[in-house]
Amino acid sequence: MDRTPDRGKGHRVIFQFVSPDEASQQALISNLKNLLAIWPEAEVEVVVHGPGIDLITASKTRYAQPLQQFVDHHAVRIVVCENSLRSKQLTLEDMLPSVETVPVAIIELILKQEQGWAYIKAGV
Amino acid sequence: MDRTPDRGKGHRVIFQFVSPDEASQQALISNLKNLLAIWPEAEVEVVVHGPGIDLITASKTRYAQPLQQFVDHHAVRIVVCENSLRSKQLTLEDMLPSVETVPVAIIELILKQEQGWAYIKAGV
Amino acid sequence: MDRTPDRGKGHRVIFQFVSPDEASQQALISNLKNLLAIWPEAEVEVVVHGPGIDLITASKTRYAQPLQQFVDHHAVRIVVCENSLRSKQLTLEDMLPSVETVPVAIIELILKQEQGWAYIKAGV
Repeated sequence: MDRTPDRGKGHRVIFQFVSPDEASQQALISNLKNLLAIWPEAEVEVVVHGPGIDLITASKTRYAQPLQQFVDHHAVRIVVCENSLRSKQLTLEDMLPSVETVPVAIIELILKQEQGWAYIKAGV
Repeated sequence: MDRTPDRGKGHRVIFQFVSPDEASQQALISNLKNLLAIWPEAEVEVVVHGPGIDLITASKTRYAQPLQQFVDHHAVRIVVCENSLRSKQLTLEDMLPSVETVPVAIIELILKQEQGWAYIKAGV
Repeated sequence: MDRTPDRGKGHRVIFQFVSPDEASQQALISNLKNLLAIWPEAEVEVVVHGPGIDLITASKTRYAQPLQQFVDHHAVRIVVCENSLRSKQLTLEDMLPSVETVPVAIIELILKQEQGWAYIKAGV
C-alpha cells in the first residue's frame, strides 16, 4: 500500500495570465503559493501574454521575488509569448531572468491541454 | 435505440468563480439557470475563491435564493476555498448554508479536470 | 518520416467570449490572428454570449472584417447563444453574416471539451 503523501508529482497545470491589473497579479501569486504549499512537486507553467506582460517585466513588476522562488524551488516555468514581446517592442532582456519564451501563447495553451494538462485562466 | 431525452446525466462541469463584481455574479447565475434548464441532471460544481467570495457570503449576496434552489433541486455543489476564508477572516458560518469547503481552490480545479470534468472560468 | 509542416490540422480549440470591453475584443482578434498565422488549418470555434455579444452585433462591432476573413479562409466558426440573443431582444439578423447559433453557450463549451477540444477563456 502506497503511504507516500501526495506532494503533487504528476499533476500538471497551465495558467494563462493576460490581465493588466494589480488585483489579478496578486491573485495569481496567491494561487501559486497556495498550490505549491500543498503540492510542492506539481508541474506548473504560467503563460503570460498581452496586457499580462507587466507582471514579468523587470522594470514594472512588484513580484520579482516570489516568481523567482517558484522557479528556483519548484517545477514552475514562466513563459512569455514572442508575439506579445514584439507588439510591445520589448525583448526577453526586459523580462525577469527566470522567464522563457514560447512562439505563440495560444498554441502553447492548446498543446499543453492536448497533453493532459489542466488549464486555469488566472485573474479576477 | 436509446430514445431517452438527454437530461444532462453524466455531463460534469466545474465553474471557477473569482470575480468581485455584480455583472459577473449575475452572469454566473444566468449560466447556471440556462444550463440546468436543458440539463437538469448535469453534475455541477462551483468553486468560489478570492474576491469571488462575496457571492456566497450570507451578509452580502443577492443570490441566496437561486443558489439554494440549484443545490436543492439539482446535482450542484458550491464549494469555497479554505485559504480564501482564512485570508478574509471569515468562517464557513459566514457563508450561505448550502456552501461546503475545499482546502485549496486551484487543486480542486486541477483534480476535477484530471477526472474529465469540463472547466469554465465564470465572470465577464 | 513525416516532414509535412504542422499547419494546425487536427488541433481543435473553443474560445469563450463574454466580455463587454474593447480591450478584450482586441485581445481575442489578436489571439485568433496569431494562432491562424502559425496554424492556418486549426479548427476553431468562438462561443459568444452575455455581454460579449457586442463583438458580433453588426451595428456595433469594429471587427466585421477580420472576423469575416477568419470564417472565409480558415476552419473557424463563430456561434452565439440563443439565450443571449433573446435576453437582449436581438435576432440572428442583427449579427454579422458569418455568425451561427447554439442553443446554450455553456452546454456548447462542455460538449466540445468532452470531445477533446482545448478551451480558452478569452478576454483580459
